[in-house]
Amino acid sequence: MHDWSGLEVGYDVPALPGMALREVQTPALVVDLDAFERNLARMRSHAEASGMRLRAHAKTHKSADIARLQIERGGACGICCQKVSEAEALVRAGISDILVTNEVRDPVKIDRLARLAARARIIVCVDDPENVAPLSRAAQRHGVTIEALVEIDCGARRCGTLPGAPAVQLARVIDGAEGLRFGGLQAYHGPAQHIADPAERAAAIAAAADVTAQTISLLKDAGLDCDIVGGAGTGSFPFEARSGVYNELQCGSYVFMDADYERIRAEDGGRVGGFENALFVLTSVMSVPVRDRAVCDAGLKALAVDSGLPRVFDRKGLRYDGASDEHGVLAVDGGEVSINERIKLVPGHCDPTCNLHDWFVVVRGETVETLWPVTARGKVF
Amino acid sequence: MHDWSGLEVGYDVPALPGMALREVQTPALVVDLDAFERNLARMRSHAEASGMRLRAHAKTHKSADIARLQIERGGACGICCQKVSEAEALVRAGISDILVTNEVRDPVKIDRLARLAARARIIVCVDDPENVAPLSRAAQRHGVTIEALVEIDCGARRCGTLPGAPAVQLARVIDGAEGLRFGGLQAYHGPAQHIADPAERAAAIAAAADVTAQTISLLKDAGLDCDIVGGAGTGSFPFEARSGVYNELQCGSYVFMDADYERIRAEDGGRVGGFENALFVLTSVMSVPVRDRAVCDAGLKALAVDSGLPRVFDRKGLRYDGASDEHGVLAVDGGEVSINERIKLVPGHCDPTCNLHDWFVVVRGETVETLWPVTARGKVF
Repeated sequence: MHDWSGLEVGYDVPALPGMALREVQTPALVVDLDAFERNLARMRSHAEASGMRLRAHAKTHKSADIARLQIERGGACGICCQKVSEAEALVRAGISDILVTNEVRDPVKIDRLARLAARARIIVCVDDPENVAPLSRAAQRHGVTIEALVEIDCGARRCGTLPGAPAVQLARVIDGAEGLRFGGLQAYHGPAQHIADPAERAAAIAAAADVTAQTISLLKDAGLDCDIVGGAGTGSFPFEARSGVYNELQCGSYVFMDADYERIRAEDGGRVGGFENALFVLTSVMSVPVRDRAVCDAGLKALAVDSGLPRVFDRKGLRYDGASDEHGVLAVDGGEVSINERIKLVPGHCDPTCNLHDWFVVVRGETVETLWPVTARGKVF
Repeated sequence: MHDWSGLEVGYDVPALPGMALREVQTPALVVDLDAFERNLARMRSHAEASGMRLRAHAKTHKSADIARLQIERGGACGICCQKVSEAEALVRAGISDILVTNEVRDPVKIDRLARLAARARIIVCVDDPENVAPLSRAAQRHGVTIEALVEIDCGARRCGTLPGAPAVQLARVIDGAEGLRFGGLQAYHGPAQHIADPAERAAAIAAAADVTAQTISLLKDAGLDCDIVGGAGTGSFPFEARSGVYNELQCGSYVFMDADYERIRAEDGGRVGGFENALFVLTSVMSVPVRDRAVCDAGLKALAVDSGLPRVFDRKGLRYDGASDEHGVLAVDGGEVSINERIKLVPGHCDPTCNLHDWFVVVRGETVETLWPVTARGKVF
């Protein structure tokens, strides 16, 4: 339990437990705990129903508290991270099973990763045979075993070796390296998450699953089994789950959702997975210079706009129309808007929005139940 | 001087003083100290030559060290902040003359602002008569004087009362309020900074200066003098300086510059003010899956893309082509790119980029000279 004494509301923290939602200093990141818990339960059911393991992605929230809840109550077998410093922060907070869904190439970072493997199960991705010897030497130096997945490019065109023979060749190199253990495949198709049309999204994942299945089969021929075949995100996981190819889902955004994911439709027309908005940027109106324009206190330093502007939640007659560094301009469509009125914004993109804040203000109904630190905020290296 | 003992490179800090630039853990925010110092001197000369005071805007860097250098060596009479929490952070660090270039409406924030005025000269903007009584009561409660500028909308269409009679009416209310002192006008035209064409930009500022001059004249008729007529930013300050209307420049980005400001031309075709790039996001290449694509470790959590993607600095054959949360995709135009190669990126927008990081790695040539904390990082409330 956190010690709240000595913390100054406003300067140190946006709120304290027991405060009313309307007293929270804004802009602040607010978690609707009821919606969050329902999202946890929904994803647990989805994973159980499909017989898949869930390895929840912590890059979304960067919070040790949420990672723990995903494992203890949300059915997750472990956690994904994207950076060594993120993994360091979560291992220090007691998380003991972490896949870094990324390549680690810098010698200092490789050493840091190997040191972590003395305290937790550490799995990492590799897409280049040249990466194997440095990882192996670091593992031996620290007397640990690092599990390594071969990351294949299954359509995302970012990192990843080519599927098929090059992937098998790389797996062989890993398998022969002291201190490493070949753990399987990383086959994540990021851009597919954001294809709005379900049929096109299904086709992208089907293509990814195809090349993944072919690679698994070639690996089997070479005597190499895949403990983990990982991938999938909140936008596409039903397709990976049904493919019969994957066995670990790496969804992250499902706990919160955002305005971008609201545009992603399920096959039946509803929202994929049935998840609901559990994350908001709470903002206050600070100026109403003219009848049709209000200005709120949440701009580019309080919410990420890379995937579009935020959506005003559950409040008619207002639209978030433009962001500058510290201001949001609200278009007022008739009706009144009051100075100091609190407004909930659904951020365009939850991951980089969380990374802007130090605290989640965790709310049950209209009351602050607790605060969770954004444990790995700014841990980008 | 900071105590560096006990800080772990990688987890706590991206570098330590004395390290070589190539050893810095990436992604990291790097300040080229030579270029930074030249920018300080350039702006000091501009302000002196035009007989204007410079009140440098700290929202760009959020750093107490840089604010101090702007005052002690860069000719600034004081500092601008955008949020009460930013001002709190800088007052705690010893800055003693601060204009909050923004309205403060929340009762708790008003109280915090008044408490600051016991420790520093505090000036704030007002655009609504309803704001005056709460400010006045807080000032009296804490036994302080708060200076208040009337913010007018001189074309930006964000906050600000209408110029002319409504501004005079508001100034009268401030002038009559116990604990407040009418300090002048805030007449900032933000969007004008980013108009690429110098003639169009000049026209926007000329229109702003016109309504400001008319308002000053009406205030004079009402017996109200303006100690401060403030506004201007890095993109437009030569126009405000020449107008004869303003007396305080509020430039911020000049210390660093960014890719967006590179597109802003001076009247003679060069760069406005002659400022040079002093801020970079240092990134490392972490994957080269195919000949024409490399992937680096700086994405949306290391740089802000609201004003466009970053530009690769002083390195031929590479273009930053797309950002995801933790990755940047680099288009490789012939030539070789090596794993772990360090690349300097000029961020699209310096202010929200600084706010993503905890430290400035301050470099002289190829050596880390010191680190400056981003003192008010995340101080958005």
